[in-house]
Amino acid sequence: MSRKFKLIIAYDGTHYSGWQIQPNAISIQELVEKAIGTFVRHPVRVVASGRTDAGVHARGQVAHFSTESDLDTFRFLLSVNGLLPRDIRVKEVCQVPENFHSQYSVEGKTYHYHLCLEKFQSPFSRLYTLHVRERLDLNLLQQAAQLFVGTHDFTSFANLDLSKPNLNAVRTIKRVDLCEEFGGVRLEFEGNGFLYKMVRNIVGVLLDAARGKKTNEEILKIFAARDRKQCGRAVPPQGLFLDHVDFPTSALEMSASE
Amino acid sequence: MSRKFKLIIAYDGTHYSGWQIQPNAISIQELVEKAIGTFVRHPVRVVASGRTDAGVHARGQVAHFSTESDLDTFRFLLSVNGLLPRDIRVKEVCQVPENFHSQYSVEGKTYHYHLCLEKFQSPFSRLYTLHVRERLDLNLLQQAAQLFVGTHDFTSFANLDLSKPNLNAVRTIKRVDLCEEFGGVRLEFEGNGFLYKMVRNIVGVLLDAARGKKTNEEILKIFAARDRKQCGRAVPPQGLFLDHVDFPTSALEMSASE
Repeated sequence: MSRKFKLIIAYDGTHYSGWQIQPNAISIQELVEKAIGTFVRHPVRVVASGRTDAGVHARGQVAHFSTESDLDTFRFLLSVNGLLPRDIRVKEVCQVPENFHSQYSVEGKTYHYHLCLEKFQSPFSRLYTLHVRERLDLNLLQQAAQLFVGTHDFTSFANLDLSKPNLNAVRTIKRVDLCEEFGGVRLEFEGNGFLYKMVRNIVGVLLDAARGKKTNEEILKIFAARDRKQCGRAVPPQGLFLDHVDFPTSALEMSASE
Repeated sequence: MSRKFKLIIAYDGTHYSGWQIQPNAISIQELVEKAIGTFVRHPVRVVASGRTDAGVHARGQVAHFSTESDLDTFRFLLSVNGLLPRDIRVKEVCQVPENFHSQYSVEGKTYHYHLCLEKFQSPFSRLYTLHVRERLDLNLLQQAAQLFVGTHDFTSFANLDLSKPNLNAVRTIKRVDLCEEFGGVRLEFEGNGFLYKMVRNIVGVLLDAARGKKTNEEILKIFAARDRKQCGRAVPPQGLFLDHVDFPTSALEMSASE
């Protein structure tokens, strides 16, 4: 009988081409599939809640895979982590119902973007923060951030493949919080889903707002334009972390028959 | 007229052979000398408070150099950091008296050693902590640590070149503190000076104590033996940080004539 397992995975994206398998580049998915395949002794497909780009990190990516093998979860974690490089760790594994899907069952995702605001960026945060040299007005940033909360069409803030039919760019962002942390600030985005490059595009706009280069009115106009070209440059990947992915309890509860 | 400048330098030691210039390996000293030499337009020698080994990090290494150039310290920091790789940052520069010496004027040094005590080491701390898989008795560790406080002959805890005459292995450790931090604990060592590999050898002994493998009586015997072979293995470099170096105010005060 095939069983489905949910994984929580942390990774340092610095040295990878992103989550998703690609030709001629090393992806996190490829290494995780290889390690799990070695443990369960058959090829596996590992499906994540979403891909992360090259250089983007994860503290709590969620993925699932199926196997017919008997699986001792304690031995699984020890062995699979032993087979993975030290910049990828499977933190948790648990069995989930057959109809669980790490992408389609998602209830919410939380991303963090870290900004270093010190005069010189610490050697220890260089791979995990964006260094912002100019003075930022954090009140302006905070105000602009609230424009993104709620249910909106985010076409202008996503790098979409416009050739795809029936593209729905409406998403709900539950909160955008600005949190102080050592050496800078962190922007926390929680939403029901995020389009391709959406967080990095929004952070780019928020930095413009914090530098006094974009007013709230201008940001509302960008929303209305439904055109990615209006929004300016995305910030680089190294400040971005997929912090965690939430699922409804119902998606995780095993029934007695499973 | 030649002027002397004191630097505070932070570096991620992961990719370097250590502070000190060596043939056939890239050292931090070499890169700092090259960057400053380019800025002041003449070769400089940069003398640090002490060398750090390959893989050891620094948050506040102190070094000095002399130059006859006029030196705008604001431009100096911007330019020199622009010339250095991002895992080495000069955080501060200030003029000091001619008789200041970053090694001989030292009053105290503080090292931190970081232990990760989680089941699986985070990808983000893998280069900056030692992962300890076994359960540690932190009370035993704390008690054993206090044996090292005070003025002692540390011959047994240093990798000394015994061929050197008049070697003095007596040092004073002011405090060894155990501090909780995210994911584990940190050992803080403050002393008037540390011998080669002394902190890493002591941490090795403290871990043995925390695993119940060395009693306090056995540690006192190692002190008495004055023999490095008694003390066991040094812990690896990546958990070690030179946190900061202290100097007496008198060593830093410029006289009116300077």
